Amino acid sequence: MMSNIEQVIQGIGPLQEEAIARAEGHLNQLTKPPGSLGKLEEIARQVAGITGETMPVFEKKAVVVMAGDHGVCEEGVSAFPAEVTPQMVMNFLAGGAAVNVLARQAGADVVCVDVGVNADLEHPQLVSKKVRKGTRNMVREAAMTREEAERAIMAGVEVVEDLVRKGYTLFATGDMGIGNTTASSSLLCALTGLEAGLAVGRGTGINDETWLHKQAVVQRALEVHDPLGEDVLDVLAKIGGLEIAGLVGVILGAAKHGCPVVIDGFISSAAALVATRLAPLSAAYLIASHLSQEQGHRRLLEAIGLEAMLHMDMRLGEGTGAVLCFNLIDAAGKIMREMATFESAGVSRS
Amino acid sequence: MMSNIEQVIQGIGPLQEEAIARAEGHLNQLTKPPGSLGKLEEIARQVAGITGETMPVFEKKAVVVMAGDHGVCEEGVSAFPAEVTPQMVMNFLAGGAAVNVLARQAGADVVCVDVGVNADLEHPQLVSKKVRKGTRNMVREAAMTREEAERAIMAGVEVVEDLVRKGYTLFATGDMGIGNTTASSSLLCALTGLEAGLAVGRGTGINDETWLHKQAVVQRALEVHDPLGEDVLDVLAKIGGLEIAGLVGVILGAAKHGCPVVIDGFISSAAALVATRLAPLSAAYLIASHLSQEQGHRRLLEAIGLEAMLHMDMRLGEGTGAVLCFNLIDAAGKIMREMATFESAGVSRS
Repeated sequence: MMSNIEQVIQGIGPLQEEAIARAEGHLNQLTKPPGSLGKLEEIARQVAGITGETMPVFEKKAVVVMAGDHGVCEEGVSAFPAEVTPQMVMNFLAGGAAVNVLARQAGADVVCVDVGVNADLEHPQLVSKKVRKGTRNMVREAAMTREEAERAIMAGVEVVEDLVRKGYTLFATGDMGIGNTTASSSLLCALTGLEAGLAVGRGTGINDETWLHKQAVVQRALEVHDPLGEDVLDVLAKIGGLEIAGLVGVILGAAKHGCPVVIDGFISSAAALVATRLAPLSAAYLIASHLSQEQGHRRLLEAIGLEAMLHMDMRLGEGTGAVLCFNLIDAAGKIMREMATFESAGVSRS
Repeated sequence: MMSNIEQVIQGIGPLQEEAIARAEGHLNQLTKPPGSLGKLEEIARQVAGITGETMPVFEKKAVVVMAGDHGVCEEGVSAFPAEVTPQMVMNFLAGGAAVNVLARQAGADVVCVDVGVNADLEHPQLVSKKVRKGTRNMVREAAMTREEAERAIMAGVEVVEDLVRKGYTLFATGDMGIGNTTASSSLLCALTGLEAGLAVGRGTGINDETWLHKQAVVQRALEVHDPLGEDVLDVLAKIGGLEIAGLVGVILGAAKHGCPVVIDGFISSAAALVATRLAPLSAAYLIASHLSQEQGHRRLLEAIGLEAMLHMDMRLGEGTGAVLCFNLIDAAGKIMREMATFESAGVSRS
């Protein structure tokens, strides 16, 4: 019998080539040298392939912020105390965090999901999908059981399916979880073979000493769970995070429902790498937003085959870079709908 | 007696350090690791320093599109015929070009200026500042006289001053002029010593043969006018363009009036290099928008000391990349105005 996750993966199809060709045909009628709008044209083709429409309008957009805590924080890997995770969740729900501000500008809604925060949280707008109160410390034992990782993934899928029912058609991924750059770096190492020294960054802003310690912690986690084999779900469970698993579900769910999903920075990209290893076809539904200042993000994007559009030296997470990218997707759509053609404007071709 | 241009340059002051410090102080109260919003924070500090306000609102924004023709088109350097310049000007005025679409999205107005189009153009919205009908062919003689170059610069200054009177406080630069990548490449070579092979790109999309020919044309222009000395205005006159000179005026005028000015791609950056050589203090008023696919753009930005935020592989000009960047400037302002502080949100610090 297929697992729930397997069913979601089987539901992801390739892009619609005929719609891509129609979009390309329209782009080449517009008053500009062919291809001169670069990635705006790429987005126009991609969203046509995803949605089947050459000029889709994304009326309702959501950034899904998955929150979870990390047992590995016991090792002292972060500049911030773990209590910041629930505090920031409440900040998201009150509308005061950076992602709220940028989402309002983009006309998008912030959907905050507790998939594994180590606190009892209640708020009318909070989506509660708690699998457990934080992961276990991955340098001692598996961060999650396989079943917990699967439940966290399905939580992400369910959140997206609920939003699709409510009319949302464009998604962005966001994360909150003190310690989650450590988990993401570990996933980067395990899934690509990159060494810890190149995969571990400064997170929210650690000093040199903590940085070296964090590298050692990642190295230890990789050794404790050696061998980490080809079973991606097993790798995710042992050294990942609940919110990372939740984002894997957001990506798979969006792809299954034919919706583009904009990837934020380092954490979201670690989730995207896991998602595309589980379901290679899901990669075509992804739009990379920004290149994070976090060391290792470029390698993650390369491993997935994505290129960032925004180079803002940001390293906040929450979905802030992804939400900034919504404006570029809107721009691509507006170009398709509103630009004059060579014929209509009476402009000579080359 | 000071020339008009000299008076404009003398009117440009340094940024207001006290306002920058106040902006920095506010940014460090907000619920995020210090510096984690990267260039959004840089923009917030810069616009504070430019305007003297920590949370300025740019109610009226304009992209000034300077149009002019190039005598060097006789040499066969472009993929498009020169008649496209006036045709595209009419397209701008009808609202059908890419820059119009993206400006509408950004809530900005397109101000189209004829500073040197080789055609008789009339339209109620066209700002007519024609200095002459196109430059002369720079491989045979100086593209402009010094007096023509000065008039074109002052045309740009006047356009900005008129817009400032109408309440515009944020500007972007745009260009239209078949052949103007050839002039911009020549300026890049003359002002930085870069060789033609690295400064000349594909423009609107030329093939290998035309590309090599275009390099030879630039090389010839540099030889014909050798020596091109330290007199930047003389260099601009001999191998520049009327619309490039007009954009120099836009930059100097915006800086004089304490307004940020967003630089588009290759042509606008050539104008910015000239402007900052004439008035080094003007550099602090510039915001680089996108990194063009045009070879040589990165070198231009480096020479000015700017870094692009958008990596979109665009190469259209018109101000399209600069206008896309307005959203990022709005985002920086919204972050300053709307984000919660550590204290107000009850979030622990590191």
